[in-house]
Amino acid sequence: MFSKSQIKLIKSLSQKKFRNKHGLFIIEGRKGISELLNSSLDLHSVYTIEDIFKTSEEKTNLISEADLKKISNLHTPQTALALFHIPEVVQPEIKGLQVVLDEVQDPGNLGTIIRLCDWFGVEDLICSRETVDCYNPKVVQATMGSISRVKIHYLEVSEYLAAGKEKLPVYGTFLDGKNVYSESLSAEGIIVLGNEANGISPQMEKLISKKLVIPQFGKIHQTESLNVASAAAIFLSEFSRRNFTER
Amino acid sequence: MFSKSQIKLIKSLSQKKFRNKHGLFIIEGRKGISELLNSSLDLHSVYTIEDIFKTSEEKTNLISEADLKKISNLHTPQTALALFHIPEVVQPEIKGLQVVLDEVQDPGNLGTIIRLCDWFGVEDLICSRETVDCYNPKVVQATMGSISRVKIHYLEVSEYLAAGKEKLPVYGTFLDGKNVYSESLSAEGIIVLGNEANGISPQMEKLISKKLVIPQFGKIHQTESLNVASAAAIFLSEFSRRNFTER
Repeated sequence: MFSKSQIKLIKSLSQKKFRNKHGLFIIEGRKGISELLNSSLDLHSVYTIEDIFKTSEEKTNLISEADLKKISNLHTPQTALALFHIPEVVQPEIKGLQVVLDEVQDPGNLGTIIRLCDWFGVEDLICSRETVDCYNPKVVQATMGSISRVKIHYLEVSEYLAAGKEKLPVYGTFLDGKNVYSESLSAEGIIVLGNEANGISPQMEKLISKKLVIPQFGKIHQTESLNVASAAAIFLSEFSRRNFTER
Repeated sequence: MFSKSQIKLIKSLSQKKFRNKHGLFIIEGRKGISELLNSSLDLHSVYTIEDIFKTSEEKTNLISEADLKKISNLHTPQTALALFHIPEVVQPEIKGLQVVLDEVQDPGNLGTIIRLCDWFGVEDLICSRETVDCYNPKVVQATMGSISRVKIHYLEVSEYLAAGKEKLPVYGTFLDGKNVYSESLSAEGIIVLGNEANGISPQMEKLISKKLVIPQFGKIHQTESLNVASAAAIFLSEFSRRNFTER
């Protein structure tokens, strides 16, 4: 069974407003789907050209390669596509090591940052409402399954940081910040990362309690900035390394 | 003047074989073009809707927005597109901190790694012949100008590493490697990074003198691997931090 209304539903999920309306998102590929099936996420339906998943009959749709092509967002469709329910997340508690994103726009960057949070044990990723949607198919694909293991919250980050800075240090990167390699870093804290082109907005800057910089080692010093996902990798590595024994 | 043969030439440069044939590559956007004009790279021609570059008359082509759309590789063309000559690079000397890529496939990853090399002062980036071409328009775009400041070599990396390991330690990431945060790291050395899906190939593995791992801090330990550009960021950060005073 593969009806026109199913195709229409799946196609609509490449748009945020329909993902929110239906509470569903898309993931493609055998590996990604298997990871999500083994997670706490709730399967809605799977469309596959081979019966390779141990999913219940009513949720499994065996389809042709031609049909998979119709619904896929990928240039080269990969065996299967599944719909999962978008999980509900409760307001995050202000504790542990957290990452806050201020208008990160590129789906690949957000996907990489989610994967980094998973690797470094960051449980809560807090995104401004202007940040790209984490259930955008390109983001989901780039997380390589990590999307099921990190709690992602979209909220008013200025309010969150205003409350957060009462409890934890709030770190952010600025050109005039202190060297991240030599500054003391607390085991619990909030790391703020800004927009690809403009960095951290002036409104957020006021809420940063400690300004840091990743020093530039190149001779020429012409590089303008690091990619935001690279900065996330270096920050999370540095915090985790230092506080390893304390956690 | 904007002839059909010019359009044909520019369009052909999205393919590697024509880039090599003509010795030219494309960069788009005012900012990127300005950075390359200020570098050692040699301009071939610029196609712009505004006369904003101080380039010589015979190399400057004022064109319409509609014409720019015809030649652009971007969804939203950005004011200008330029062709630069691909620079000749001499065989790299085996010294300093170097990065070797073993079949990195994703243009965004290569672009980010080039940008990281620039930031951390890595002068030579060595790529296996199977690695995505650094003059691919998507790579050039992702480097944000760094492509003009890092020397990129495509060669037989197994031969290079066989010669290199006689002079410098050769590092690579493996699941059974030693903790990168606690191992001693030399100021000069070769860091090998592998393919997105398969990591470092068995053939290259034999040439690694020190296996390292970026330890996983997450509770669940289900994340399969870090993105190769994230691993590059963490490795370069760690090497640079430790050897800062020594360089």
